[in-house]
Amino acid sequence: MEKEPLLMLPGPVPMPERVRCAMMRQAINHRGAEFGQVYKDCVRVLKTCFGTKNDLFVISGSGTAAMEAAVANFGRDKKIACLVNGKFGERLFKIAGRYGHPVEIGSPWGTPLDLKALEEQLKGGAEMVTLVHNETSAGILNPAAEIGKLAGKYDALFIMDGITSIAGDTVNADQWGVDVAIVGSQKCLAAPAGLSAISVSDRAWERSSKNPPYYLDLAAYRKSAGSAPMETPYTPAVPLFLALREACAIVEEEGLEERIARHKRLAQAVRAAAEAWGLRLFPETDMLHGYSNTVTAISVPDGIKDGDFRGTVKKMGIEMAGGQDYLKGKIFRIGNMGAVGAPEILATLAATEYSLAKQGFNVKGNGVRAACEVLG
Amino acid sequence: MEKEPLLMLPGPVPMPERVRCAMMRQAINHRGAEFGQVYKDCVRVLKTCFGTKNDLFVISGSGTAAMEAAVANFGRDKKIACLVNGKFGERLFKIAGRYGHPVEIGSPWGTPLDLKALEEQLKGGAEMVTLVHNETSAGILNPAAEIGKLAGKYDALFIMDGITSIAGDTVNADQWGVDVAIVGSQKCLAAPAGLSAISVSDRAWERSSKNPPYYLDLAAYRKSAGSAPMETPYTPAVPLFLALREACAIVEEEGLEERIARHKRLAQAVRAAAEAWGLRLFPETDMLHGYSNTVTAISVPDGIKDGDFRGTVKKMGIEMAGGQDYLKGKIFRIGNMGAVGAPEILATLAATEYSLAKQGFNVKGNGVRAACEVLG
Repeated sequence: MEKEPLLMLPGPVPMPERVRCAMMRQAINHRGAEFGQVYKDCVRVLKTCFGTKNDLFVISGSGTAAMEAAVANFGRDKKIACLVNGKFGERLFKIAGRYGHPVEIGSPWGTPLDLKALEEQLKGGAEMVTLVHNETSAGILNPAAEIGKLAGKYDALFIMDGITSIAGDTVNADQWGVDVAIVGSQKCLAAPAGLSAISVSDRAWERSSKNPPYYLDLAAYRKSAGSAPMETPYTPAVPLFLALREACAIVEEEGLEERIARHKRLAQAVRAAAEAWGLRLFPETDMLHGYSNTVTAISVPDGIKDGDFRGTVKKMGIEMAGGQDYLKGKIFRIGNMGAVGAPEILATLAATEYSLAKQGFNVKGNGVRAACEVLG
Repeated sequence: MEKEPLLMLPGPVPMPERVRCAMMRQAINHRGAEFGQVYKDCVRVLKTCFGTKNDLFVISGSGTAAMEAAVANFGRDKKIACLVNGKFGERLFKIAGRYGHPVEIGSPWGTPLDLKALEEQLKGGAEMVTLVHNETSAGILNPAAEIGKLAGKYDALFIMDGITSIAGDTVNADQWGVDVAIVGSQKCLAAPAGLSAISVSDRAWERSSKNPPYYLDLAAYRKSAGSAPMETPYTPAVPLFLALREACAIVEEEGLEERIARHKRLAQAVRAAAEAWGLRLFPETDMLHGYSNTVTAISVPDGIKDGDFRGTVKKMGIEMAGGQDYLKGKIFRIGNMGAVGAPEILATLAATEYSLAKQGFNVKGNGVRAACEVLG
């Protein structure tokens, strides 16, 4: 095979060589001191990324496993208000249906959430609220702080999926009143896929459900994390922990603030290009809802076939994402999570600009230059 | 750090360099053709190791996750007869308690199971039987074929944990009437920790429980595995799949029959050494129950402190396992799973023989030579 394609997706994302090399280690005993230190290092950095002082655990399973852990440990048999304006909000709603009594508070994908309807549900006795902070399926950034305030006002638990925002955008879980927050390894952390992390507030622990599942029983994670050396209740995916520790070291070296600023700058550059070309950004934003800073969703212009359009870009070695489910063919998405910088963004925009013109779209202005003006 | 310790544990086990290097790849899209082929390659080889033509899926989670998937998808609200003669049998019993109505058919750890009591439970309406084929906590090999026959006679589903036998000892899941079998990646397959695989018979599918969990919903795995390219329902632990594919290639190259014969020979060598030294093998075997061929459990002789004894061995760079739970200090265990051969076994036995003498045990005969007679 020739060179690897450049993945400009909303995860998985390119990993630094240091992170990949960390997995080459020979097997180590996951009940020993060395593994305990690896786990501890991950937890320390992740707590900073989450903006939390709460307990935090790493789960050997994807972000979906952590979503389920949140609902299964703290939401069983509860009335759960699920905010949905994209695919992942919908997934949380589906998971909630396996354990509790969910009410969907839905808006069309990529449009603002209905906070009035949420307040009605909270008045009506909802005990838990679920939110996807950064909804990658539609490129919208949802107002976690405001929703946290509402949940707090009615004493409901607040579950926030920060899978694609944490370590790439501003997250202050404790300040926002988040009880359970979640991140995935293969997004802004630029680690391999297969791990997730979850934080749990005291308030959530006090309301733990009886009869949790087994592999995702968070009380078992708490007990094992408290032992010396620190460990996980069941065999962890050791190479992925080693890689995550390295990815966390990179976050510390770059500095979280600078990392977040970089993500914002890159997303802004993509938006500037889209606007220069005369394309429409897909999300409808308002005073509370913004554009995602880790993935940009752009409407495919009329008359352009998404497959051909992205196919030309792919021929140049760059994979962008299409739309999911009913947005298939209607939007395309450029991720800027993790270890990408100006070179990757500029290459992607150059290929996109070329492909738009090739498909017959009347490109208005120079998007690559507009991006350079943001990045330079 | 100096050289890595040699892990002679019942998992995790040393991995061949090829397997570890496979994880260094840059991130790939897990919805693409390349990943689909990796998954397919794993499934093909694993089916051979399981001795099954049934559906088989790889789960991004440890063997415990697969145990839970078995019980949660097929055992909910059922009466479950759990055969327990060690720690992992106990774990299956605990998991069964989260979903169904388990009855423990217990024997002291490492002693034969009570098949008469099992038949009583089956007559009494048990709809599912759980068994740990190779109980590493006590070094005993349980009679899966006989138990399969009994389960079949009473039309109960038969769940077999083959986590530490599959790919290292003889397993014929279909012939034995196993409905759901499980393996872990970091045992006889010599792949990294973090994956498990599970096979599902048609009979099990017909009796699927309603309201399965989400991350471990096997119907979702079946649907995704059937798509083109083959995929997993949620983001898989990609580097671990790449490593597992390489480990499976090694199984094919060695040949499954030869691999099993090698495991048997190595375990036999360890047993020969123990007998030569005048030590007692811990399990009580009978016509149906044998010694494990992937881990040997040996009683710590009277007057010897397990910690000092294994400490001296560890000083020479070799980690053996102690006993778990109430067997702590009473037994020690030498694993011979995966990519180990005569050199690792001989080094371990030499260090053990030395340490026994050093702790003041009156070593009867030359265990290392007895092992050489098996291996040479």
